[in-house]
Amino acid sequence: MLRVVVQVSDINNVDQALTSCNNLINEIPDAEVEVVFHQSAINAVVRGSTVEDRIRDLMRRGVVIVACRNSMRSRNITEDQLIDGVKIVNAGVAEIVRKQAEGWVYLKL
Amino acid sequence: MLRVVVQVSDINNVDQALTSCNNLINEIPDAEVEVVFHQSAINAVVRGSTVEDRIRDLMRRGVVIVACRNSMRSRNITEDQLIDGVKIVNAGVAEIVRKQAEGWVYLKL
Amino acid sequence: MLRVVVQVSDINNVDQALTSCNNLINEIPDAEVEVVFHQSAINAVVRGSTVEDRIRDLMRRGVVIVACRNSMRSRNITEDQLIDGVKIVNAGVAEIVRKQAEGWVYLKL
Repeated sequence: MLRVVVQVSDINNVDQALTSCNNLINEIPDAEVEVVFHQSAINAVVRGSTVEDRIRDLMRRGVVIVACRNSMRSRNITEDQLIDGVKIVNAGVAEIVRKQAEGWVYLKL
Repeated sequence: MLRVVVQVSDINNVDQALTSCNNLINEIPDAEVEVVFHQSAINAVVRGSTVEDRIRDLMRRGVVIVACRNSMRSRNITEDQLIDGVKIVNAGVAEIVRKQAEGWVYLKL
Repeated sequence: MLRVVVQVSDINNVDQALTSCNNLINEIPDAEVEVVFHQSAINAVVRGSTVEDRIRDLMRRGVVIVACRNSMRSRNITEDQLIDGVKIVNAGVAEIVRKQAEGWVYLKL
């Protein structure tokens, strides 16, 4: 089974990135997908963001959504501000390389 | 032999991306290279685009050029508007992860 | 041991990219990390750049910093203008795909 770790960095391209995530799971429904939000894109996973509904929809479809704690810290985002169900890792980039080392395929959006 | 699947997403960086593709095949002439255009970069593979000649030149040099049907649809681009020889896949991102699963190396430009 | 080849392309995102590199080696201190600067980001590794101190600090921490000669040429940057210790490869993109073919994990920042 295909496992894909997706990196989303740029808040200005988050809409396109989420569309691409949807396209991916529509095309490969049995893929295991984890999407890591870091850098400015971290704002997408905050409750009340313009894409909150789309993030929730991805989680409902089985996609794991991950927030980078380093990115949260540098923007003063606290854990309780995140959309329910979003997981946290210390460093988004470390998560991305570790997943690849475990055999996950990488996609940068 | 090295096989490389290249992702081009941003129309604003297409010129740089095409230069990088040329640099890649100049440096590794026997690499098998497929370049997937999606998101806003899909406009690069439409006939009459500012980079049509460069796209044609890459195909002449053996590079496979691929267009994402999802990106075409959301921009009302039809198959007959594409530069001759450009192939179409349902979802560019699915193509990119599948190629990696088959052992292709990934490059995001 | 984890080996990671990092690609930095965009000078406008170099600060974020360097922060991510630091986060990566803080989280995985024994990772072997090489960072390839190409396209507009090549200007980051020129002596006197706004991030010179951060580049030097990464090298001090064991990170290998690589400059793309093609990107240097197209911007008239000569070898003697680079920050001491920066290595040069003919084509940054070729370096990135070759490293992956040797088992390095890929990260695009």
